[in-house]
Amino acid sequence: MKFAVHKLMLATGWPFVVILNENDARALGVHPFDRLNVRLNNRQWNTVLDVAKSGFPVKPGQMGVFEELSNTMGSREGTIVSVTPAPKPTSLRYIKKKMAGFQLNRKEIFEIVKDITERHLTDIEMTYFVTAFYINTMTENEIVWLTDAMVRTGRRLDFGRGKIVDKHCIGGIPGNRTTMIIVPIIAANGFLIPKTSSRSITSPAGTADTMEVLADVALDIGKFKRIVKKVGGCIAWGGSVSLAPADDQIIRIEHPLSIDAEGQLIASVLAKKASVGSTHLLIDIPYGLFAKCKTLNAAKRLGDKFLSVGNRFGLKTHVVLTEGIEPIGNGIGPALEAIDVMKVLANARDAPLDLKAKSLYLAGVMLEMVVMAQKGKGFELARATVDSGMALKKMNEIIDAQGRRVKDYSKIQVGEHRFEHCATHNGTVKGINLNSISSVAQAAGAPLDKGAGILLHKHIGDKVRPREKIFTVYAESKFKLVAAKEALKDSECFDY
Amino acid sequence: MKFAVHKLMLATGWPFVVILNENDARALGVHPFDRLNVRLNNRQWNTVLDVAKSGFPVKPGQMGVFEELSNTMGSREGTIVSVTPAPKPTSLRYIKKKMAGFQLNRKEIFEIVKDITERHLTDIEMTYFVTAFYINTMTENEIVWLTDAMVRTGRRLDFGRGKIVDKHCIGGIPGNRTTMIIVPIIAANGFLIPKTSSRSITSPAGTADTMEVLADVALDIGKFKRIVKKVGGCIAWGGSVSLAPADDQIIRIEHPLSIDAEGQLIASVLAKKASVGSTHLLIDIPYGLFAKCKTLNAAKRLGDKFLSVGNRFGLKTHVVLTEGIEPIGNGIGPALEAIDVMKVLANARDAPLDLKAKSLYLAGVMLEMVVMAQKGKGFELARATVDSGMALKKMNEIIDAQGRRVKDYSKIQVGEHRFEHCATHNGTVKGINLNSISSVAQAAGAPLDKGAGILLHKHIGDKVRPREKIFTVYAESKFKLVAAKEALKDSECFDY
Repeated sequence: MKFAVHKLMLATGWPFVVILNENDARALGVHPFDRLNVRLNNRQWNTVLDVAKSGFPVKPGQMGVFEELSNTMGSREGTIVSVTPAPKPTSLRYIKKKMAGFQLNRKEIFEIVKDITERHLTDIEMTYFVTAFYINTMTENEIVWLTDAMVRTGRRLDFGRGKIVDKHCIGGIPGNRTTMIIVPIIAANGFLIPKTSSRSITSPAGTADTMEVLADVALDIGKFKRIVKKVGGCIAWGGSVSLAPADDQIIRIEHPLSIDAEGQLIASVLAKKASVGSTHLLIDIPYGLFAKCKTLNAAKRLGDKFLSVGNRFGLKTHVVLTEGIEPIGNGIGPALEAIDVMKVLANARDAPLDLKAKSLYLAGVMLEMVVMAQKGKGFELARATVDSGMALKKMNEIIDAQGRRVKDYSKIQVGEHRFEHCATHNGTVKGINLNSISSVAQAAGAPLDKGAGILLHKHIGDKVRPREKIFTVYAESKFKLVAAKEALKDSECFDY
Repeated sequence: MKFAVHKLMLATGWPFVVILNENDARALGVHPFDRLNVRLNNRQWNTVLDVAKSGFPVKPGQMGVFEELSNTMGSREGTIVSVTPAPKPTSLRYIKKKMAGFQLNRKEIFEIVKDITERHLTDIEMTYFVTAFYINTMTENEIVWLTDAMVRTGRRLDFGRGKIVDKHCIGGIPGNRTTMIIVPIIAANGFLIPKTSSRSITSPAGTADTMEVLADVALDIGKFKRIVKKVGGCIAWGGSVSLAPADDQIIRIEHPLSIDAEGQLIASVLAKKASVGSTHLLIDIPYGLFAKCKTLNAAKRLGDKFLSVGNRFGLKTHVVLTEGIEPIGNGIGPALEAIDVMKVLANARDAPLDLKAKSLYLAGVMLEMVVMAQKGKGFELARATVDSGMALKKMNEIIDAQGRRVKDYSKIQVGEHRFEHCATHNGTVKGINLNSISSVAQAAGAPLDKGAGILLHKHIGDKVRPREKIFTVYAESKFKLVAAKEALKDSECFDY
């Protein structure tokens, strides 16, 4: 059938959606979400049908076209196009097969991931895929094939034959900014460490948010590669480098139900590492009441899967399980965490020792993995790299290469509005509610207000006296400081 | 935060979607599909967030609002509204619980169905629900509770205390228009039969399409009720009566993967019957290679579930399993099927006997169910109702009440473009490919072109000679007749 293009002044993203009037859709024998082939001047496009129930916004004989398709087709208002029903993507058959409980093979998984990457599937169809793998779980083979498909459908970096080191933390612990200390240590020891990090999703700061206090992090893949080649390390926001793009789509679909399917988590992490050509990978899995893994056993199980899939995938993988029951370092929020990091690298007198210790431990394991240090000597080498100032020098090279934002860490702005949270009685800190601490920091404006957050004066085991400061809350506006006070009222952050 | 309304000239249906600029969304700490509470003049609305990646179409400080919400709020371009993050519907927790393999209770299922009915859930969230019940299957309790929730969240008809009879066919067999013969037989015997039927989804005609040749079928619930009260029977399109509205949403979500979850199918059928206050229900389950149930055993299993759920739900349910290996009657397509139906009711000399026999059999069972006829005597009573002209008289009352479209069946228009498909050799018809027959009828224009379709001259078991007519294809345009010829080329409709 022929239709006249009616341009809708809106972008909807992918897949291309076209709108037909209800009667025209019936005449074509098609329903919402069916596929249509649209042809104009010997070119053709795959589209997904939506149906207008009334004459608004699409009258009979019209085809409503959103911004992206309209631009791609070069069509004008009233341009005549040919439209025929088209078959659905074959990947839907494989999704249905997994729903029925069958295991998928490499080719079937690749087809699904390819269709996700090329944006041929609708949100509904991708949700079927995510749920099928979530409910019916993934076999180890399927995780390997999913990882492989994610890598093959994205861009890959090739730094040549050397050892390329990477790390990943499963997350959940505020202030856990070891990456920004480890990357310069590893790079200063002559290894490449092309690190992409996320912005915060549900926390007061992600590594990308924190690094952004010091340097630009929204780097495209070309710049990312040049920096790694030039200075050995880089700490970029993964969203701009866009490796393994299918993963972003899957995460978007998982968000509404806060689903964290284990197989997909493993594939997601490994695909991003494999895309940058990593050869050695350290996985840090914190465990504790507020971490993603609640118990040591859960952390062990997840670690074992990372190990076997990572190694099968050709990545020399090592897993460390770390207790995560309180924030690492003193700062929570981008600016405050960046200050912690820089104090460690600069060997400042008041550097947070717990952040330093954890970073040196992880960096040491990595240096042993690449046989730069003997077994048991990695920690010493990592410490020497920091103590000698080599790590700080390397960090400054990385910051300059990415695009420096502050002259030095003493110039980092923290929120000018602040209040102290003080103890009401004598005691010893027995526990810290990480969820509550995060909520207060977020209410204060973190992570978008870089200077907002919390500075801890006490950790677990510390003694407190009445009217002694436990932590300081920082905000960039009076309004958000009030919001943080409100959030604090509803929650017990410190147990002492 | 405060935003200025930016009106987007487009309707998107429900739930209300608002679009914020990417940076504003980050400042609010929200992500696509999160909930926002929008307030204006002491009123408030629940909305779902979408995010504009660039300044198009929603600039920082703006909130993009689609037609429905804009109209509901009475907002203008630039109206200032307050926006705060809102919690997600609690029903999402229950969906996640079912995904984890737990059985849901009555309250949890009701909450989900209520949120679907009130359009609080997004397509992605409804897909999680559909998949969870599909993969993890439903217990009999869950099917009963789903049915109950669907009924309670929709409108219900109350015809008082008498026996209200209904029937449902699981479908899949072309020409199977028994409903239009059964309804007048039952009504002529003094029982109420408030029948809602569907339009075709994947076939050349549904009962609603066929009835529409004779009378209006797009009746609202008020008119539907008045007609049933006045003449005893009615054959309306279910889409306009809109009983158990949650069901339509679930079916829409199931369409892209052609999912037909058994529990949902049963709940869907029973909810619609319970909503009109049915007391007695006959379920016809055809089985055969081209039917929904491929084998007698599959039909038995499905029938047993219908029986136990229906009876638990207070519906006196009876199931018949009928062999479905060839079209019923001679016509396929709305007008041709309507002619078949009227010929049976009018006792025409050339009425299709197979359609008559099946209709009388089903009507007979129903008359026995309501104890209008003794066991074994129902068929005789149904036949007498037709032979005496009582059924035809009742059908004419029903047609007049709904809104008559043709004076009598001799005035029904069939497509003026036609061709005969003739035999090429001697033989006996061994089988008919129902999928192929349907495809040809659809290519000819059925069901939207009412006069399009196929008239069969041969059934299984009939002898054919070279150049003898097997069937005639009707179309309303030359173009579609050519399309039907093309479709016929690719397929073997008759095996002889």
